[in-house]
Amino acid sequence: MEKKTGNGINKGLELVPGTVPVESSTSLTLQRLFFVGIALGLLFNAQYDPLMACAGLSILAYILTTILIPAFGPAFVRVGFFGRDLGKKDRPILPETMGFVCAIVYLMTMFFFIPFLFYKYFVTETSGSGNREQFVDTSAQMIHKGRQLKLFPHSKLAEYLAALLSSFSMLVLGVADDLFDIRWRDKLFLPAIAILPLVFVYYVDFGVTSVVVPSFLSKISNTELPMTIDLGIFYYIYMLAVAIFCPNSINIFAGINGLEAGQSFVIAIFLLINDAFYIVPGRILELHPPHPATEAHLLSVYMVLPMIAVTAALLKFNWYPARVFVGDTYCYFAGMVFAQVGILGHFAKTLLLFLIPQVLNFIYSAPQLFGLVDCPRHRLPRLDPETGLLEASRVYFTEVPPKGLQAILLSTLGKMKLLHLERNPETGTILSASNLTIINLVLTWSGPLREDKLAIVLLGIQTGFCTFGLAVRYTVAPLVFGRDNL
Amino acid sequence: MEKKTGNGINKGLELVPGTVPVESSTSLTLQRLFFVGIALGLLFNAQYDPLMACAGLSILAYILTTILIPAFGPAFVRVGFFGRDLGKKDRPILPETMGFVCAIVYLMTMFFFIPFLFYKYFVTETSGSGNREQFVDTSAQMIHKGRQLKLFPHSKLAEYLAALLSSFSMLVLGVADDLFDIRWRDKLFLPAIAILPLVFVYYVDFGVTSVVVPSFLSKISNTELPMTIDLGIFYYIYMLAVAIFCPNSINIFAGINGLEAGQSFVIAIFLLINDAFYIVPGRILELHPPHPATEAHLLSVYMVLPMIAVTAALLKFNWYPARVFVGDTYCYFAGMVFAQVGILGHFAKTLLLFLIPQVLNFIYSAPQLFGLVDCPRHRLPRLDPETGLLEASRVYFTEVPPKGLQAILLSTLGKMKLLHLERNPETGTILSASNLTIINLVLTWSGPLREDKLAIVLLGIQTGFCTFGLAVRYTVAPLVFGRDNL
Repeated sequence: MEKKTGNGINKGLELVPGTVPVESSTSLTLQRLFFVGIALGLLFNAQYDPLMACAGLSILAYILTTILIPAFGPAFVRVGFFGRDLGKKDRPILPETMGFVCAIVYLMTMFFFIPFLFYKYFVTETSGSGNREQFVDTSAQMIHKGRQLKLFPHSKLAEYLAALLSSFSMLVLGVADDLFDIRWRDKLFLPAIAILPLVFVYYVDFGVTSVVVPSFLSKISNTELPMTIDLGIFYYIYMLAVAIFCPNSINIFAGINGLEAGQSFVIAIFLLINDAFYIVPGRILELHPPHPATEAHLLSVYMVLPMIAVTAALLKFNWYPARVFVGDTYCYFAGMVFAQVGILGHFAKTLLLFLIPQVLNFIYSAPQLFGLVDCPRHRLPRLDPETGLLEASRVYFTEVPPKGLQAILLSTLGKMKLLHLERNPETGTILSASNLTIINLVLTWSGPLREDKLAIVLLGIQTGFCTFGLAVRYTVAPLVFGRDNL
Repeated sequence: MEKKTGNGINKGLELVPGTVPVESSTSLTLQRLFFVGIALGLLFNAQYDPLMACAGLSILAYILTTILIPAFGPAFVRVGFFGRDLGKKDRPILPETMGFVCAIVYLMTMFFFIPFLFYKYFVTETSGSGNREQFVDTSAQMIHKGRQLKLFPHSKLAEYLAALLSSFSMLVLGVADDLFDIRWRDKLFLPAIAILPLVFVYYVDFGVTSVVVPSFLSKISNTELPMTIDLGIFYYIYMLAVAIFCPNSINIFAGINGLEAGQSFVIAIFLLINDAFYIVPGRILELHPPHPATEAHLLSVYMVLPMIAVTAALLKFNWYPARVFVGDTYCYFAGMVFAQVGILGHFAKTLLLFLIPQVLNFIYSAPQLFGLVDCPRHRLPRLDPETGLLEASRVYFTEVPPKGLQAILLSTLGKMKLLHLERNPETGTILSASNLTIINLVLTWSGPLREDKLAIVLLGIQTGFCTFGLAVRYTVAPLVFGRDNL
């Protein structure tokens, strides 16, 4: 275009003192070449196995992301995508919204995966005339032959594409948020818009809206309830709820180096483990017929593996001391991918078991989010310039001391050691309280920590709860529902 | 996110003197409500007719875009998406990249259209159990019953989703270009990346790569050539070529108010007329079986109608005197939609007939694009501050006069009146030449014009060539190919 846009206006900003140069690790070239070789080997594996191809593409995605993030960092700063790292003494300026790079690499990986997903099937089963009826019929027969472990059912293409569409919408809306700083009450519902393609395709293409009924309900009601009930429209509302919760809950459990990418990494790993429970047995024991949920979990793996790859690459640069920020874009994108996996794989409940820390953080933050307790602009931990350690940030009730419900809530939480209160020695009125986030709560318990220690503790908590969730999934859940689909 | 991004840095820029306020036309509220009523009527038409629903959604898309563009304009300026209108005396600052808003509305429209596209089919033909095999078989039967004029074949879902995916990729890459000002040699190939999802899905899902052979070839070669030949891989290269050409050719035929959106509007209208040739007869005469290409052209209508709607809304604000700029984003997006329509509808050749002005402009610009003739940073027409009229901008050969091939080319074009040359009276060496764009060529022929007059002339040329292309399509083409698929 002839007209010069004003994006040049930030030119030179990366020269601001305190800017951290995002140096590219070109010394790793040989190592990279080695892994590229392995990746290509997996990609073009003799068995045309989509799973191996996906692994290969994921390795490439990781390498590409580690190259692109340092390459694009300065350009992002130049056009205005940057922020100050308030957790450091010199408050350096870092590139913001680098999750955008991850998302692009992820989506490109998913694009390039499409032919590998169908290649064997395509070359072996059809004339290439594109006769879809034949496609689906044969795939149906193949399912009976229990061969879909190797051959991805063609009917999944629409699901796959719809998922990519939703991811793209989420990406665009996330960037819009990073650009325009949308008010959080508004952006709370952006994911609901982004998930629409998936919901619509789910509606026209599958429309399975029934869920398993816990068996104990039959017992307590002394009536023979059906094994499943059709939720109809409510199932779609449920989908929207999952889609809204995942991205936002990750987005509010954030604020220190490595936390956003770290928690997503842990969650993705546990999703992978959960998928393995369904896929590995079928692979090893060559079960005929294999587990009916296998293809759903294969799709999950195909979506999660590249996510792990790009997240690991991002974590490399976002870990303390961070050289880049992930941006809301990343939190939304990661959360949306998880939501899609949960919805398409029909294991949204299991997914929520892996998001317990996010759930707790949301519940714990609710009083401030919904204005019951004052909420300062920033709630991230405060840096003590002397020690260089982070301590819990506080909300101060300077003009008006908390009264009524607010006071009751605060003092109750204070008694339960779920909050640190500062009271006026004489009157006993509450002067200040630690902000209501899990991050600050951990700091009130542990005392000041260095940023990376804090991140490790929080990710440890994430891992612990995910393990707990996985255990619940395979011990308690079967009892509740009276059966396990494993 | 806690970290404040630097996008606030441009705050207050819309206060720069000369900024054109993008006032919202709230006086039109009643009129809007009236059209919203009509739109909803069409949308929920008793026949569940997707075509009527699409028309209804397009009306809503137009109204929404006319509301959103003025609403978002100032925010775009604030975050750095703005440019100076060099065609005006006071060079006002206008919001740039408003094509982004159009693209978002377009894509949302396409999302919301999915259920309507399949609704009747869904409620009448399936139990909602989502058994895809049944789906496709019944749709196949329905095609035999010649009923797909009302019922969109389910097998088109993948195509539809792939098209949306490509549009999204193009949108993201277009925004990236507007943000980072990618060098044109690099961005030339962005559409090739964006079209990948469509190509891959085409490959796995349809894989029809044969084209009709012109019948005269059989005659001249005195051999009985097949009616069609399979181009195989070359067909995919052909797709990529179309995808690269359409967005870029629109992007370089740009630079004055209303031209980018205007030409896209004209092209879209002619695509619609071409589709009508296939759809209307079947609708009126109730042909059994209907024309086999009907569904392809229905898909084309579903993609083109909303494009016309958002383009019309954008044109409203981009027409002289422009209150917003469309941005590369729009040119790429519009071109990509056209390319998709041409590819999915298997009438890429017809599409190119509607892009003759773009082809000519590209050929005419080639010497400067590929560096045979010097190319200044800006080639858009120059404003004469005295008269307020635009005149052809020129490239000056100050230090080194053109020699050899360059001189021959320039003087040849000069003789053919395809260029205005300024020569040194004594030596006769070329001092300057008008820049090689159709816009400047028209100005050298017509003399100085006001910006809106110039736009009208250029859009008139576009309309003329499109009419010519349509005539060729239905007169010459049948002769060349020995048969017409109409």
